[in-house]
Amino acid sequence: MKILFIQTGGTIDKDYPKQMKNYAFEISEPAAKQIIERVNPSFEYEIVSLLRKDSMDITKKDKRKILEICAEADSDKIIITHGTDKMIDTAKFLSGLKNKTIVLTGAFTPEKFTNSDADFNVGAAVGAINIVGKGVYITMNGRVFKYDEVKRDKITGKFVSINNFK
Amino acid sequence: MKILFIQTGGTIDKDYPKQMKNYAFEISEPAAKQIIERVNPSFEYEIVSLLRKDSMDITKKDKRKILEICAEADSDKIIITHGTDKMIDTAKFLSGLKNKTIVLTGAFTPEKFTNSDADFNVGAAVGAINIVGKGVYITMNGRVFKYDEVKRDKITGKFVSINNFK
Amino acid sequence: MKILFIQTGGTIDKDYPKQMKNYAFEISEPAAKQIIERVNPSFEYEIVSLLRKDSMDITKKDKRKILEICAEADSDKIIITHGTDKMIDTAKFLSGLKNKTIVLTGAFTPEKFTNSDADFNVGAAVGAINIVGKGVYITMNGRVFKYDEVKRDKITGKFVSINNFK
Amino acid sequence: MKILFIQTGGTIDKDYPKQMKNYAFEISEPAAKQIIERVNPSFEYEIVSLLRKDSMDITKKDKRKILEICAEADSDKIIITHGTDKMIDTAKFLSGLKNKTIVLTGAFTPEKFTNSDADFNVGAAVGAINIVGKGVYITMNGRVFKYDEVKRDKITGKFVSINNFK
Repeated sequence: MKILFIQTGGTIDKDYPKQMKNYAFEISEPAAKQIIERVNPSFEYEIVSLLRKDSMDITKKDKRKILEICAEADSDKIIITHGTDKMIDTAKFLSGLKNKTIVLTGAFTPEKFTNSDADFNVGAAVGAINIVGKGVYITMNGRVFKYDEVKRDKITGKFVSINNFK
Repeated sequence: MKILFIQTGGTIDKDYPKQMKNYAFEISEPAAKQIIERVNPSFEYEIVSLLRKDSMDITKKDKRKILEICAEADSDKIIITHGTDKMIDTAKFLSGLKNKTIVLTGAFTPEKFTNSDADFNVGAAVGAINIVGKGVYITMNGRVFKYDEVKRDKITGKFVSINNFK
Repeated sequence: MKILFIQTGGTIDKDYPKQMKNYAFEISEPAAKQIIERVNPSFEYEIVSLLRKDSMDITKKDKRKILEICAEADSDKIIITHGTDKMIDTAKFLSGLKNKTIVLTGAFTPEKFTNSDADFNVGAAVGAINIVGKGVYITMNGRVFKYDEVKRDKITGKFVSINNFK
Repeated sequence: MKILFIQTGGTIDKDYPKQMKNYAFEISEPAAKQIIERVNPSFEYEIVSLLRKDSMDITKKDKRKILEICAEADSDKIIITHGTDKMIDTAKFLSGLKNKTIVLTGAFTPEKFTNSDADFNVGAAVGAINIVGKGVYITMNGRVFKYDEVKRDKITGKFVSINNFK
């Protein structure tokens, strides 16, 4: 099994700025790298840093870049780390790709925080990608969703199933 | 979706002893609790602390207890956190259970360490249990294995497939 | 020995916002509380949450509040956690207080980060306040400075001695 | 200001063993290195790894080695990280050194744990060594003690003053 990890940015990769008089975060190295190194994986992998953007700033051109790198990848298993706000949008954009298994994930709290959900979420994406068939998926909040069966809860921000039966 | 988490002990739950003149670790609260709280899950769950043992110390009687609690559980999705040394043994012992999905996981480094693999591994177990059918599985080192298709690498201690093709 | 800890805000207390579509940090509970609890101190202490502001936003009125609470404190040993950008300003403002030992400290990376300097810096402040006489001090970057003998290095942002001989 | 850090081992440096079927901890790289790197210090320093022992295993010969390296050090400010059980013994052993400032510290929970007291304790040692005169000191539990004014509380294991007035 070989997995290609693609960094696009988002909360998972946010770090505290080193400069003076700075309020906001900055997007740093791919968190997936740190996470996978902690795991000592029994699979091959490659990590590509494609974008370092908050997902609110991801443009149509950026999404085309993501689609392109997925389409051309050797590996048929791809995990994309992505900001949570536009993760569903990008998942839908990629849904035309029929011969790949693509899982998008991210985090609500940056990987560099002691109480981050990043390791768990990347773990869930890897757990899912071992098994699921071709298609585009999102793993957040401990659930594995097809790209067209997921929405955000407007109050909590959690990723939930579009139907409440699951 | 509802998941029952069963604590049996092992490295994942190890904490540093608070007493003086103590060398070894002690097994503490279920790490799964801390991990799941960080995630804010979109699933229901329950955590049962059944055993707090290093897996080298798990007896046949202990394994029967684990089997019993699995057989009688309301939930048909069960994640067992377990020491790595005897994880495969316990998985085999449980393989007679046909109407449940059981995933065993654990950690090489305790959850209380900054560089732990615990969050990732529990994430992988949760990712897998969303999808896999009835049966008994192990998720370690980023792989999802059927209970009878996994072994330890004798040099690295990693969980690997019994055949090298996967 | 009794120490009064006063929270004013700053990087040390920054947490990742829980709301959707938020870029910046928010100032949370006093980090000093978490830090001191980890230490199991052999001293008495009290923690007061006075302000939760980035130090760039601290007004003259805020500084008067800080001065007042210091002047009226029962304890003659006071540690103020403060944003780094205006820490020296506030230290100078407090320098009229002659019958107290006041140490200001903070962090370059929030306490909630795995690679934070917060624990060390609060430790250095506590180590210093065991010993130093009445007066106003800053402990940052592993140094204990009198309020009027410290400046920021313009390039690195580090707190350094105003003379290079120390 | 230049500080020499000497590693002797103890809880502060303990790591989880990487081998299979291992219960106990092993003593790893000097924790002081990680801690000081997080701080970006405004002082010069050197770290020497002299011993990697639990303090229960430190022999008279080991103590002589520690004394020797202290006596011969260029720096007159020395911080020794040490196991807690025999820290006071070693401090007493070093008390003949009159022309150095020596501070011993350590931790109750290894530096590699998320809830460690190691960063704070090393911070307190550094804060103290900025100020205190020649002599041998211990900084633990947020207190700076002279080598002959400190004892362990028999129930809690905390370092406390031999008289209760301080």
